[in-house]
Amino acid sequence: MDDADAKKGRRELASEARQKLLMDAAIKCFAEKGIARTSMRDIAAQAGVSIGNLYNHFPGRDDLIAEIAKMEKEGVTEIIEAVAACTHRRRAVETFVTAYFTYCAEPISAVLTIEITSEALRNPAIGGLFSGTRDMLVSCLTDAIALGEPKPSHADAKRHHEMAGMVIDTIEAFAVRLGLGGKRPGKRERDMLLSFINRALSDDLAR
Amino acid sequence: MDDADAKKGRRELASEARQKLLMDAAIKCFAEKGIARTSMRDIAAQAGVSIGNLYNHFPGRDDLIAEIAKMEKEGVTEIIEAVAACTHRRRAVETFVTAYFTYCAEPISAVLTIEITSEALRNPAIGGLFSGTRDMLVSCLTDAIALGEPKPSHADAKRHHEMAGMVIDTIEAFAVRLGLGGKRPGKRERDMLLSFINRALSDDLAR
Repeated sequence: MDDADAKKGRRELASEARQKLLMDAAIKCFAEKGIARTSMRDIAAQAGVSIGNLYNHFPGRDDLIAEIAKMEKEGVTEIIEAVAACTHRRRAVETFVTAYFTYCAEPISAVLTIEITSEALRNPAIGGLFSGTRDMLVSCLTDAIALGEPKPSHADAKRHHEMAGMVIDTIEAFAVRLGLGGKRPGKRERDMLLSFINRALSDDLAR
Repeated sequence: MDDADAKKGRRELASEARQKLLMDAAIKCFAEKGIARTSMRDIAAQAGVSIGNLYNHFPGRDDLIAEIAKMEKEGVTEIIEAVAACTHRRRAVETFVTAYFTYCAEPISAVLTIEITSEALRNPAIGGLFSGTRDMLVSCLTDAIALGEPKPSHADAKRHHEMAGMVIDTIEAFAVRLGLGGKRPGKRERDMLLSFINRALSDDLAR
């Protein structure tokens, strides 16, 4: 690596560190005050930088939310990769449920889920940033439910897709409820959820 | 009824009509702009009354939210009465699921659920107004799951209570998802949800 490259590398690292500092500040403000009540000025103050510096990295609040969407997509991609490594149907579903539940139940995720849903109600562009991630999750779980089966009929495929949507609703709502209560779920809650979902999917998993 | 009583009756009716007008305006503003972005001035303007008149009926935004909590409690009480009239376990659970799902899936309910949850995150008094209603729902469904059984063991009672909580999570999340999508759920969605929940509760309902 020559001098110019090394310099560029250091600059990029510094810029990434700055970006992370700003995102942490934004997430803290969004969670504490709510997105609607957070101004760019609040975020700059929380990060201890000038407002001009914040605007250099993020031209507006929506750009910060877009960055959260990107982080969420990365988190979800890890879960999807773990599920894709499973070779048995029940194991794939269990891996999905456990990993996604753990992810959603982080108190900060639970708060952000509510805040971003509220934001998306009035700003469809925000909703659009997250809908792709939801589609990835539904499609991952749909595949897990049918893993190892011969190509399902159109009706079965539709049913698996709908079941996957409802399982994801259950995971998210239970996790958000625990997360908002400030309770970090343990083995007991995970086992309860798993057996609830295993029974709900019993017709599909038993084949 | 003498003249004074009749006058009092008319005054009360007029006051009730005014209260309803103000509540409708508040709900419309909360749903369209979000609670955090709605001011008392916005609500008065939406209702076409002076801000003084609004303050006469509701000293602050929290009082309007408390009135929503009261309306929600009344709606939920109707559902609970319908469930209490059932004499068979499966019928009681089905009545609960169908009625509560229909209630939550109203687009206005779906939006208010998100808005109020977001508000409650930063104002525990708001959360407190609604937590009693959730407790009523969980307890109603817990009873429905055990209907006709001899007194359950402590472990079974706890399990029924937890199952009821998770069923309510599923109903709410699925309904909110459809409601936010502006989709009014029909028979197909209701049947899907019912069979999902029936299977999830199969161990408890089969006894």
